[in-house]
Amino acid sequence: MNEDRYPFLRACRRQPTPYTPIWLMRQAGRYMKEYRALRKKYSFLEMCKNPELAAQVTLQPIEKFKLDAAIIFSDILIPLEPMGVEFEFAKGEGPVFHRALREKKDVEKLRVIEPEEDIPYLMKAIQIVRKEIEGKIPLIGFSGAPFTLASYVTEGGHSKNYILTKSLMYQDRPTWDALMEKISEVLIRYLNAQIRSGVQAIQVFDSWVGCLSPDDYEEYVLPFSKKVMDGVGKSVPLIHFATSNSGLLELMKHAGGDVIGVDWRVNIGEAWARLGYDIAVQGNLDPVILFGPVGLIEKEVKKILDSVGDRPGHIFNLGHGILPNTPADHVAALVDMVHEYSSQVRQERR
Amino acid sequence: MNEDRYPFLRACRRQPTPYTPIWLMRQAGRYMKEYRALRKKYSFLEMCKNPELAAQVTLQPIEKFKLDAAIIFSDILIPLEPMGVEFEFAKGEGPVFHRALREKKDVEKLRVIEPEEDIPYLMKAIQIVRKEIEGKIPLIGFSGAPFTLASYVTEGGHSKNYILTKSLMYQDRPTWDALMEKISEVLIRYLNAQIRSGVQAIQVFDSWVGCLSPDDYEEYVLPFSKKVMDGVGKSVPLIHFATSNSGLLELMKHAGGDVIGVDWRVNIGEAWARLGYDIAVQGNLDPVILFGPVGLIEKEVKKILDSVGDRPGHIFNLGHGILPNTPADHVAALVDMVHEYSSQVRQERR
Repeated sequence: MNEDRYPFLRACRRQPTPYTPIWLMRQAGRYMKEYRALRKKYSFLEMCKNPELAAQVTLQPIEKFKLDAAIIFSDILIPLEPMGVEFEFAKGEGPVFHRALREKKDVEKLRVIEPEEDIPYLMKAIQIVRKEIEGKIPLIGFSGAPFTLASYVTEGGHSKNYILTKSLMYQDRPTWDALMEKISEVLIRYLNAQIRSGVQAIQVFDSWVGCLSPDDYEEYVLPFSKKVMDGVGKSVPLIHFATSNSGLLELMKHAGGDVIGVDWRVNIGEAWARLGYDIAVQGNLDPVILFGPVGLIEKEVKKILDSVGDRPGHIFNLGHGILPNTPADHVAALVDMVHEYSSQVRQERR
Repeated sequence: MNEDRYPFLRACRRQPTPYTPIWLMRQAGRYMKEYRALRKKYSFLEMCKNPELAAQVTLQPIEKFKLDAAIIFSDILIPLEPMGVEFEFAKGEGPVFHRALREKKDVEKLRVIEPEEDIPYLMKAIQIVRKEIEGKIPLIGFSGAPFTLASYVTEGGHSKNYILTKSLMYQDRPTWDALMEKISEVLIRYLNAQIRSGVQAIQVFDSWVGCLSPDDYEEYVLPFSKKVMDGVGKSVPLIHFATSNSGLLELMKHAGGDVIGVDWRVNIGEAWARLGYDIAVQGNLDPVILFGPVGLIEKEVKKILDSVGDRPGHIFNLGHGILPNTPADHVAALVDMVHEYSSQVRQERR
């Protein structure tokens, strides 16, 4: 199938589509009973590292909902392990790192990975999924952005105030730059390997960069994010996503990406006007809205679609990952609402 | 002393001052060894509830640093206890509530307090501090905003995603409105009692409201915040503070306040331009900057002062509360830098 026929890829390129395409961050996840059934048998990392399981989980939401893209099941921390960073997923706590990075020699020890050799299971999973969904919907690959990964490595896990990350940034610039440089090099290789393996779009998650002031983002982060996105090239569309700081939108555009992913803290129509219409946008339903009721979901969907209008280049998504206790039937309703309302609006305006 | 002589109060009213006044959120706190010494003997709540101790802690940073205002030592959760909400401060975990609010009858049980009778220790502490600092600097009183307090009551503590709060808001509007209404009534009484006891300015902390979209803020929160601020009247200046969502600034202004407190996620000069110059602004150094080095603090202080210019109506502060491990000598340096650089700029422009 000609890739230009997929509404998701067309919207990434700001080409007209018969309806607004939709996918959901973390759409393969705990809110699905099929996922929870598998998780009883395997740990999260076991599922990431087994290509057949990862492919199976990737396909679970695709089989159940009329989503316009699949996203490979993995985790942004996956490339850190072959770099030499050891961590585990502690029950209910998120990732816990065995040793946090503190100084230049810790950075020097980090390996620049060879993705196809070091993370073969992901590349295999991508190939399996591609075969399964060929001609139906496209497959998205992804990575964390340099800042978000550097924050995990420096904090030794998730953080509230990012004191260690920012202190490294402010107090030891050479080490910070060396760390960001090495992570950036790894991400360029990692994302290009995913593209070679078959992903048809990329999302770069800068999930925690919203803790920075615009000036700090520009000085300490933007050059590295830009390097990664420039290094991925233009062969597939790239979505650049962050949360919690609408003040960074213009700078994120400058760093790169064909699509800017925005969270719900900003009106997406206003965000698009600020960014300019030479870039596509993705978002931005508050994930908590999916807890319902359905009438509220419908009202909020219409509000978002009305706010962006029928200009080509909007991909519907949540403003952050779907939450574990989200009712699956509300997800089904959401996908249908987005398709129906957006195609109806397009027909009326013809 | 004529109150119009205090630079802090003058800046709140956008009157010219010889230098930019500065105070720091949570300036009486764990970063001070004098505070830690007292905390070895008393729990946090014991210190809040003993007027002499609360006054002593309030004065600790005033004696050590050339701050332009004192803020009474207390906690935003204090008025919840006489309302009938039971909680404790668990070690290292923040507040833990014994029972989270779930339904209408839980709201009905909440008492509307008589602040002078129910919280006499705070009023006494205010009177003690006022006597001590009379003629030197003014005293700020404070409360949480309705949303932030409602989120604690509903979540049963601090929250990551505010699922319970937003679910109540979305799924049971009558209960949400009743809860916000009752909290608002309490806050009006609470803040007016602080004013009667002697505070010369008020800060309303809507610390967690940044988790909301602008539309949700406008629909579910703004009317109650406005009610509180209208109910406090114009006898003392009111600072309206929130974090993590610069997209709410214009709506916060609409809700009320003589000063809008902004966090570091936005350039404060741009925030002021957006808000309009008929309101004062407070902020916005990232608290992590205070970990140093001193050269960096100086650079960032100048950046903030240059960004607002010498237009009257800027109060220097952090973008959120000072962090526990902040070096006290950096705080001293910060206060001096703000005074020196801002008075120097004013002299040069004469």
